[in-house]
Formats: sequence, structure tokens, C-alpha cells
Amino acid sequence: MLDEALVKKDIAKSEFEIAEDLLREQLIEVQEQLKSHRSKLIVVLEGLDRFAVRMVLNRLQQWFDPRYISIRVFQIKTSKKDLKGPFFQRFWRAMPANGTIGVYHRAWYSNVVLGQLDDGSELKLDHRIRVINQYEKVLYDDGAYILKFWLHQPKETLKKELKSADKDPEKYWWVSKKDDAMLKNYPEIVKISEKVISGTNTIEAPWVILDSTKERYRDLVIGNKLLESIRSIIQKEQEKGNRSQDSIITQETGPYIHGVTENVLDKVDLDQKLEKKEYKKELTSVLGELSKISGKAHRNGISQVYVFEGWDSAGKGGCIRRLVLGFDPFLYRVYPIAAPSDYENQFHYLWRFWTRIPPRGFVSIFDRSWYGRVLVERVEGFAKPHEWQRAYNEINTFESQLIEDGIVLHKYWLHVSKDEQLRRFKEREETPYKNFKITDDDYRNRSKWNEYKDAIQEMVMNTSTPEAPWNIIAANDKRFARIEVIKTAIKRTRNFLER
Amino acid sequence: MLDEALVKKDIAKSEFEIAEDLLREQLIEVQEQLKSHRSKLIVVLEGLDRFAVRMVLNRLQQWFDPRYISIRVFQIKTSKKDLKGPFFQRFWRAMPANGTIGVYHRAWYSNVVLGQLDDGSELKLDHRIRVINQYEKVLYDDGAYILKFWLHQPKETLKKELKSADKDPEKYWWVSKKDDAMLKNYPEIVKISEKVISGTNTIEAPWVILDSTKERYRDLVIGNKLLESIRSIIQKEQEKGNRSQDSIITQETGPYIHGVTENVLDKVDLDQKLEKKEYKKELTSVLGELSKISGKAHRNGISQVYVFEGWDSAGKGGCIRRLVLGFDPFLYRVYPIAAPSDYENQFHYLWRFWTRIPPRGFVSIFDRSWYGRVLVERVEGFAKPHEWQRAYNEINTFESQLIEDGIVLHKYWLHVSKDEQLRRFKEREETPYKNFKITDDDYRNRSKWNEYKDAIQEMVMNTSTPEAPWNIIAANDKRFARIEVIKTAIKRTRNFLER
Repeated sequence: MLDEALVKKDIAKSEFEIAEDLLREQLIEVQEQLKSHRSKLIVVLEGLDRFAVRMVLNRLQQWFDPRYISIRVFQIKTSKKDLKGPFFQRFWRAMPANGTIGVYHRAWYSNVVLGQLDDGSELKLDHRIRVINQYEKVLYDDGAYILKFWLHQPKETLKKELKSADKDPEKYWWVSKKDDAMLKNYPEIVKISEKVISGTNTIEAPWVILDSTKERYRDLVIGNKLLESIRSIIQKEQEKGNRSQDSIITQETGPYIHGVTENVLDKVDLDQKLEKKEYKKELTSVLGELSKISGKAHRNGISQVYVFEGWDSAGKGGCIRRLVLGFDPFLYRVYPIAAPSDYENQFHYLWRFWTRIPPRGFVSIFDRSWYGRVLVERVEGFAKPHEWQRAYNEINTFESQLIEDGIVLHKYWLHVSKDEQLRRFKEREETPYKNFKITDDDYRNRSKWNEYKDAIQEMVMNTSTPEAPWNIIAANDKRFARIEVIKTAIKRTRNFLER
Repeated sequence: MLDEALVKKDIAKSEFEIAEDLLREQLIEVQEQLKSHRSKLIVVLEGLDRFAVRMVLNRLQQWFDPRYISIRVFQIKTSKKDLKGPFFQRFWRAMPANGTIGVYHRAWYSNVVLGQLDDGSELKLDHRIRVINQYEKVLYDDGAYILKFWLHQPKETLKKELKSADKDPEKYWWVSKKDDAMLKNYPEIVKISEKVISGTNTIEAPWVILDSTKERYRDLVIGNKLLESIRSIIQKEQEKGNRSQDSIITQETGPYIHGVTENVLDKVDLDQKLEKKEYKKELTSVLGELSKISGKAHRNGISQVYVFEGWDSAGKGGCIRRLVLGFDPFLYRVYPIAAPSDYENQFHYLWRFWTRIPPRGFVSIFDRSWYGRVLVERVEGFAKPHEWQRAYNEINTFESQLIEDGIVLHKYWLHVSKDEQLRRFKEREETPYKNFKITDDDYRNRSKWNEYKDAIQEMVMNTSTPEAPWNIIAANDKRFARIEVIKTAIKRTRNFLER
């Protein structure tokens, strides 16, 4: 597959120069349009030919307005211990903002190809390919466009180039012992690369394979492919704009599970209670246990992520304030999640969560979370049907990557009855320092109790997995809920540590 | 000093509860005002009493609207090798946005006190105190308010508490071998702490010392101090607002050096040139050298920061594209600096640079930089006189911290003549793909050539230091400038490596 991409002759210099002038003019023009449409283009550049790669990167820096293109070259980290968090976190952090172009070299592909070289079972490769496809699909579905270039160099040329580089003062320190290993493993690398390329050549993110050694040919193709795809992005955006002007609403549905009769919330025994005295005793005891086990998790590099969801006034904040007494304060951070800011809105909705996943051994606690997508955004219409419907899959993908990385994921829904909620609303209104906690939004949400209830049922059905189940907590009695949350946390973490 | 802060009796519980209700109501109210004034409050909480600290942190989480308060507890990192970058970078990263409260525990104080314990010379302590004062002043001058609490616990109580914690299931794992060391070093820690406290008790950032063991007394004092200072922030902000409405302009001046006759730019020989052939030869040779030396710097964990400033169209981009050929692509990142975004404007103007200082061994290249403060912001009136005048000191402080951390700082001013600039403007206008590089702003700046020239002279005079001198590059000939930049980079890096 790769060798078939080789070309015999490069383009003549004079021809290149004329074409380049025109190309640059057009690229600058479409980049401006990309910016005004707030679309983003993700460009992946891979290949062993480091000399070619740096020339292409330099070219892109020169061709585009550098303020709106961000070029990221990553270090190869194939083992888990080199990474501080889940594999994709680095790439999520480097995500381009709306209206810009992000160029990635040695990112998710090199890491996978070379990782596979280190511990290559077919099963792993299939899994890796699947994870990459999921990742790219998530970006694509959010409106990012992805174009991937593989610069291929035949072994003989690579060998010759490395040899000559050895004598070229401008290049020679690029040549290291790793290159000998690379040459030795060349056939294996090509084999893996071909599998990875064909496994990830999707409609959402197609590959272009190029002969890396014919530099003028190579750069013109890259430039023209970029031009072409930015143009098609803009065209699609314009069509979208026209469609919404014409008010043609298409009913899109996603592949999620729905339609059951009994709601999970109806199965909760809300009468469960704890007396004050018992509560105090229990709290001391469970916090002691949590302290012990969270210390152990920290020492073993096990991270924890807590998700707190629940009805308004169900007592999420109070639960969190007790839970954190079981952690050394430097271990955890609490993230209260409100509507995304303008800045956050420049990125994928999962971006603000991905970037807050803790480094190994630490704890992130989310007071509300990514589940807002299938709850408030669904019910209030902030997300379109196909957006929240597809979110179940996106969330499952996201969470499975956390779990794969060895993170313990705790998910709580705090359930209170509608009457109890009203009682608390009134209490908040009457207590001056709690007043700020109650707004018209809360009553609006309350008036949609049943719609929320359906959304909760579907959320639980679609995102409760053996590794990350939902814990529905009876929270009419605050004391009972707090102890229950901590007990559940202990149990899950312990099971995880004892695996 | 610390023991004098001890109190005999705690406040009665009933009294506390009444006071707390009122306090919470007021805190929520002033927090809302703080938010609407877009002011920020920085709260420092220090002390050995970990049980007290966590109670206070939890209290703050409960008293304030958690969406607008961010609590950060840092890990103690006293040695350079534990840190990936300059000492203050972690804290700059954690800076609260406008309208919010940032609470810091074990931040710049614990690290200094415990660092001093490790290698305690008086000289170092004085230096550390000075650096902290500079840091806090920079924040204060930008409109942040800083309040610092030191929770003091006498040795006997600490000992007793640690002992009892040993048996308390909720606390016992908090007790570690480090505590024995802490108890042993207690007198020394107190001695250093007292020096640090008195050395950093400034008008800009005053200390409050509190008995950590009287919890109700302690928390009420903290709450009331916070209330008081937020109120005074709001009052000051309102006064500021009134003043600007009344159009009373006060002429403030800062402590910067000015008034010289000969401009540095006039000393530059702009006729220096390189022929194409010679340029090509030279380029290959200097890039080879740069490759070698940048590889060595990387392996030695030496970072480099490049600042490119210059007249519009002086050729900064072209210089950068050649320079980077001397670095492995994963080593460097280029940051084109434009006017700050709304998001960036929520922070101190140095924030977007502090957060982009590379980790050890890597390279950051700024295409325009923090010097915008004393150039475009000064000349165009975006910064008030006292703001840009004080910036020289702020910049020197910032850069000295980079240098202290072992970073090689390269600063270039690319100088072209006014005629050459005009020629390039015309050329850009006539070349379609360069068109985007020329805007009305460029002509506006050009019309203020002499004002800029004065600003440049003062910038160079005030910020050229032996460790980070300005390099004025003759750039009428692009080839000459590019080679000159790379040669200077090599020389400075080599000198640094050979120190």
C-alpha cells in the first residue's frame, strides 16, 4: 500500500514556483473564511522521514497566517508510565479552537505504531485502531474536519538519507542510535503502519499517502488537499446556514436505547434514614476507612473521578464536602460545572472534562458533569436531538478510556422526592445565606420533572456499564445520603485495588 | 511573634452559630459584588496544623458560592529537579480569573519555608523573601487583593494532636514519618516562618496570624477578615469608577530610566549585507552548529526562550522559520502574540507568557511578546502611563526569575529603516499571498515612527541586563539578519552551557 504511493519524478522548480504563488494566495483566502465560519481543521502528519516532516511543517507555518494555525509535535510515549494520564488527554489538551487549524505530528498514530512494535498482539492493534476511530469520530461529529497525510519513504532512501545526514552538518545530530533500530524494524513498522492506515481510513478522517522524497510534488499535493478540504468545509457550513434559514428541520435520531416501563428512580426507597447520633458515629468510621483506602490508591497511582448529578437541592454540595474529608487536601480538586463559558464553547463539549482528568494518583470531583449533555441540554433543547442522542456513545467512549487507564470512576445520582425538593426550595428561600442557591431556573427545571425523569432513566440505561455503574442514592435524608455515598466510594475503590 | 497570637478560650458554640449565619449571608452578598466588579481576591492559608487547614478550606467551600472560588493545595516541591519550570509558574497557572476568589495552601510560602529548612543560608532567605514580595506586588499592582492567614499551633498541641490522630480512625493516616521530622524541626520552622512572615507583611499583602486550635474563634476571624477585605475592594473599585466618571486624570509616573540623547537604533549599521551564495553556505553551517548546541542544551535540561520584536515587516517570521531548523520539531513551540483575547484579559498581562514558559530542556519562541506592554500599549495608549512605566520593573522581575531557573533568554529587535519598511509594505500589497500581512494598523504604527523609536530606546535602556541583553539586529538585508540571529543564538547558548 505504501510503496504504491511512490512517484518517479518530482515537479520542476519553475512549475512549482508558479503553482505555489497561486496556492498561497488561495490558502490565505480560505483560512480567513474558515475563521469567520468558526470551523476547525485537524491535520495529521505522520511518517518516518523526519527531514520531510520538518520541511512540511515549516511550509505550513509559512503558507498560513501563523496566528490561526497551531503546530504540535509530540514526544513518543508508548508506555503507560511515561504518561501522566489517559492516552488521549495530551491530544485533547492540544485541540484547536474554533476557526483555527491544528497540525499534529507524532500524535496518536506514531504512538500507536511504535507502541505496537513494543508489544504487538493483533488484538491490541485492533483495539487501538478502534479507539482512534472513536476519537476521530467524536471530533468529526462535533464539526471538526480531519485530514491525514502519511509521508512514505522507501527503506533504501531512508538509509541513504540517514547516511548522508551523518556528514551533513545541518542534519547530523538528528541521526541517533534510534535510527539504527528504526532501520532494523523497518519492514515491521511498514506492516503495522499499513494496517493502521487501512483501519483508520474513514469517511470522517481520510488518509493521503505521499512520496516523502519528491519535495515539490509532496508539498503541492499537501497544499492542494488542504485547500480542497477547507473549501469543502466552508461549502458545507454555508449549506448548513442556508438550511437553517429555510427552517427545514430534519428529524435525526441516534442509536440509543429507549422505551422501558419502570423508571429506575421509582425503585428507590426514599424512606431510608439515619439518626443524628448514628450518623456521627458512622461518619467518623467511614471517613477513617476512606482515608486509608484513598491513601493506598494514591500510593498505587490509582486516580479517582467522581461525578455528582442529582435533582436541584438534592444535596450534592453537602455530600462532596463530607467526602473530601477522606482525602489529603492536595489530592483532590472539586470542579463545579455550570453552563460553558464563551471560551469553553470554542471546543468540544467534552474538552473541559478531558482537560480536568487528574494525573495518576489524584482525584477530580465534578459537581455536575458531562451528563449535562443528556440532561439539561436535552430537556431544555440546548442540544439538538442528534447531538444528545449521539452523546451516550461519546460518553461511553470517554469513560471507557478513563477506565482503561486505570481510573476509578464513581457516578452518583442523588434522588429526592418532588415534595422534599419543594420543602428545600422554600427553606433556601427563607435562609438568607442559601438564597443564592435558588433561582427561577430551579423552578423551571422542577416544572419539567417528568421530562427530566425520562431523561434520567435513559441516561442510566445507556451509560451504566459494569465498570462504571450509576449509583442511585436515596437522598430525602441528607445524613443517609452522605454515608451511602462514602460507603459506595469505599467499596468501589477497594474492589478496584483488590483486582 | 507566633506564640503571641495564641488565645485562651474559644468562642461559645451558640454564639458562633448566630455569628456564622449573619456572616454567611454577608459573604454571599459581597462575593456577588466582587464578581460584578470583576475584581479578584487571593487568599493565602499557611500553617503546620493540617487538621485546622482542611477544616478552614471546607468552611470556605461551604460559605461561598463554589462556582466563583477556587481552592488550590499544592505539593511541596523544594528542589529544582521536582519542578518542571520556574518556581512561580505553578502559581501563575493557578491564578484566579477576574471576579473570583483564589485560595492557596502550601503554595509559595510553605515551599520557601521548607526549602529554607533544606538549605538555609540567610542570604537565600533574603532573596526568597524579596522574590515573594515582588510576586505579590505584581499581582497587587494589577488590581488583585491579597490576604494571608498563618494558622499557628504551639508545639505541644501539635504533638498531642498528632498522637491522638494516631488513634483516631478518621485522621490516622494523615500522620506520617514526615511528622516526626516536622516535630523535631519545629523550633527551626517557627524561626524561619517568623522571618518570612515579617519580611512579607506588606501593605499590598498583609498577614493575619491566628491560633489554629480555637476553631470557632479562628473561623469567625477568617470569615470576618475576608468580609472586611472584599468590602474594601468593592469600595475602592466604586471610588475608581466615580473618579473616572468625573474625568479627573491624575498624572502618575513610574520609576523608570529615561532621557538620553542618542538612540540605540541610530547606532545600527543598516548597510550590512550577505550575498545569496554566501548566505546559503553560512546558513548550512550555522544551522549545523545550532543543531549541535540545541541538542546539548536539551540533554542538559537547559530551556531557551526567544523574544522576537521589531518594526512591522522587519522579517520576524522569516527569521523564526530559519531559526527553528536548528531544533528538533518536538523541542520548540512558536507563539504568535496578538492583542489579548477576552479570556486572556481576565488575567494579569504576564499570565499568557508565564504559562507558556517551556518545561526544562524545551524552547518557546515568541513572535512579539510581553514587550508589547511598553511598545504598542504605551504608544497607542492601551496601557495607562503608570501601567507601562511600572512594566519595566515587572518585566525585569519576570525575566530574572526565568534566568534564575536556568533558562537562556534571547531578545531580538529587528531594525529596518523607514524607507525599507515602506518598500516592504508596497511589496506586500502587491503580492496576493502577503496581502493579509498588511493592514491599516501597520500604516498607523508607521506614522508614529518617532514615538515608537523613543519607546524602543527606553525599553532597551530599562530592560537590557547582563543576563538578558537586547540584540539589535540590522535587518534591512533579510539574509544578513537571519544569519545574525542564529549566530547570536549560538553564542549565547554556548556561553551559557560553558558557564
